[in-house]
Amino acid sequence: MKAYKEMSKEELLVLRDELNKEYSDVKAKGLTLDMSRGKPAASQLDMEMDFMNALDGSDLRAADGTDCRNYGVLEGLPEARKLMGDMLGVPAENVIVCGNASLNIMYDTVARSMMFGVMGSTPWCKLDKVKFLCPVPGYDRHFAITEQFGIEMINIPMSLDGPDMDLVEKLVNEDEAVKGIWCVPKYANPLGITYSDETVRRMAALKPAAEDFRIYWDNAYVIHDLYEDTSEELLEILSACEEAGNPDMVYEFCSTSKVTFPGAGIAAIASSKANLDFIKKTMTVQTIGYDKINQLRHVVYFKNVDGMKAHMKKHAAVMRPKFEAVLEVLEKELAGLDIATWVKPEGGYFISFDAMEGCAKAIVAKCKEAGVVLTGAGATYPYKKDPKDSNIRIAPTFPTPEELAVAADLFVLCVKLVTVEKLLAAAI
Amino acid sequence: MKAYKEMSKEELLVLRDELNKEYSDVKAKGLTLDMSRGKPAASQLDMEMDFMNALDGSDLRAADGTDCRNYGVLEGLPEARKLMGDMLGVPAENVIVCGNASLNIMYDTVARSMMFGVMGSTPWCKLDKVKFLCPVPGYDRHFAITEQFGIEMINIPMSLDGPDMDLVEKLVNEDEAVKGIWCVPKYANPLGITYSDETVRRMAALKPAAEDFRIYWDNAYVIHDLYEDTSEELLEILSACEEAGNPDMVYEFCSTSKVTFPGAGIAAIASSKANLDFIKKTMTVQTIGYDKINQLRHVVYFKNVDGMKAHMKKHAAVMRPKFEAVLEVLEKELAGLDIATWVKPEGGYFISFDAMEGCAKAIVAKCKEAGVVLTGAGATYPYKKDPKDSNIRIAPTFPTPEELAVAADLFVLCVKLVTVEKLLAAAI
Repeated sequence: MKAYKEMSKEELLVLRDELNKEYSDVKAKGLTLDMSRGKPAASQLDMEMDFMNALDGSDLRAADGTDCRNYGVLEGLPEARKLMGDMLGVPAENVIVCGNASLNIMYDTVARSMMFGVMGSTPWCKLDKVKFLCPVPGYDRHFAITEQFGIEMINIPMSLDGPDMDLVEKLVNEDEAVKGIWCVPKYANPLGITYSDETVRRMAALKPAAEDFRIYWDNAYVIHDLYEDTSEELLEILSACEEAGNPDMVYEFCSTSKVTFPGAGIAAIASSKANLDFIKKTMTVQTIGYDKINQLRHVVYFKNVDGMKAHMKKHAAVMRPKFEAVLEVLEKELAGLDIATWVKPEGGYFISFDAMEGCAKAIVAKCKEAGVVLTGAGATYPYKKDPKDSNIRIAPTFPTPEELAVAADLFVLCVKLVTVEKLLAAAI
Repeated sequence: MKAYKEMSKEELLVLRDELNKEYSDVKAKGLTLDMSRGKPAASQLDMEMDFMNALDGSDLRAADGTDCRNYGVLEGLPEARKLMGDMLGVPAENVIVCGNASLNIMYDTVARSMMFGVMGSTPWCKLDKVKFLCPVPGYDRHFAITEQFGIEMINIPMSLDGPDMDLVEKLVNEDEAVKGIWCVPKYANPLGITYSDETVRRMAALKPAAEDFRIYWDNAYVIHDLYEDTSEELLEILSACEEAGNPDMVYEFCSTSKVTFPGAGIAAIASSKANLDFIKKTMTVQTIGYDKINQLRHVVYFKNVDGMKAHMKKHAAVMRPKFEAVLEVLEKELAGLDIATWVKPEGGYFISFDAMEGCAKAIVAKCKEAGVVLTGAGATYPYKKDPKDSNIRIAPTFPTPEELAVAADLFVLCVKLVTVEKLLAAAI
């Protein structure tokens, strides 16, 4: 294939006509596909319907005799704390198991800091300026939280090793207004990469100007490997922070949303005892306790973290061919054209795609016009502003394989068409 | 029986010796009973174990086809909104169904107002002073929320018709800093009374000085009648507010914590469309959605509000004898002594007891010394300060009937003993 940039204007015009013809044909099919969010497919959820029967015959008592049908147990059942702790590689006593969503815990954690500060610091709502570092491209729901609280977001470029740590160190260690950094350290949303050991160690060794700076470590994909043998290892951050003399510097979040049922899973926060003690002071006013029956259901269903990991292989078996199908189409149709780059992830829920500068919005719009909804272009950046208008998050998991084949073909067609138009506009 | 106040010092001294002897005997039994919180008994929860199987054979789809196993549906399933709306007597579109606890919704509602104001008003954290009216005796967890946010709490005396509305009108209509009032309008915690129609109408017709004043209507015991035929009717507040020209003035809260399983129920907020729209703006950043499977479980289990009410009769059958046993002991042992008053409730979870001034703390301590834990004296007042030190909240539901008989006997013994000591101290 010839790189587009090397084509003459005439060649581009011919190509555009061909692509437009193809696009009209696809559009005529009247597709309606949603690839906007990282959602498990129905076929994944079908596999775990027995989760619903996990408590059949149970007397709904926890191992310590607690009646899970009644009030209480703020931190979560001990066995649920152990299960989630084992998932993260941290001790049970560093874990509080909460409700159905880690997003809610993250929101509440930021909200708490706004209203009550962090372990004795000034409440952020009393400060003139609060800033968060946002590795980009990143997770739109993180950015929505910090935006809602009026926290200034600063873009941090991502490489295949994680955030640009030179920049992170400079900003965190010098600017007292920097109170946090959003991280998805494993199979990052959307890049799909895992932070290198060096990145984690440098993160843990930060010397923040602000005493109330915390790393918001959203380990959403901690056991969400696509390949059995090539699981990318992530250094455990709580102990890394402790070793670096920063035991209280990190809040870690996780959930079983993409392990059991999204919306009906359990979520947890892991942190130092000092952080958890402070959190519990507000949490005990906010709630008497979270859903212990659902915690027990998870424990009984999985038995232990090995059960959880075995279960995730079933998910991977369904998801892997979808990732590979999309990557194959990208490779086959776009390699050599020099108009886009993408990362081949080994886990998580996304493929991050970078089009030529200034093309992402138009590509997403073109796809939508033909019936395939992608995550909005710009969504992977704070304030929905991708400075290069080039990143697109592809979420290949929700559609069926048949739908995905159609969608991937349409996607590369739109990439080509928009790029050709962009090149032609530049040539005029 | 002779009223204690009419006894001579000598009579009191003899009585004290007798009571002390009795107390030593009871103490020797080494009781360990917890009557501190309004918790259902295990025998109530045993009755509804089939709740756990409600979704057996279900495909976990809502009536509109929504896959409850996946993300989404911020406001809750339509059929769950209808169920909770019917419970409150309000339309489904005025209801958002959330997580497992109405307390959490109340906390979040106050937190939201602190951080973002109310429908465009100044965030409360930016104001010098925010005040809440607190009908007393009231619910300690309400007071804990407002105390945590530094909101000044003002005691409002309760009568058998509800809060002193003359005082409420004066304070709400004249003081712009008054932003809310905590109400448990039916079978009030702890008084057990239901607000009269006139009280509700006057509440709905308030003319608040503050545009962001709201009534926090915690209808925790809306279907929690103890008697089948004498259910106390509560006027529906949303329509009362609308009729009075104050459509946005109330947030109503409820849950199934004491209908199905505490901690594994569902909770809801009901309010005007304008209020709910404002709430959803923050809620959509806080969560993708609550546990729809548990919502579906409730809908399938109860079918409709009639199923719910029929179910509550089973609870009442277990609870009624406990209330009556305690009331019988109070009547038999204390009537005529002129040392205490109490209310006979027709629903809810509590019996409110008023000892002679200055005796409540000592009575609770005496009970504890002999192994029976009651709600801390003062807990029913803001800042845990009962100005008269006289109110005690009795929670008769959790113990077994046998335990309850022992506990009630100990309680009246402690009341007598502490009162005699108080009178003797005054006589010296």
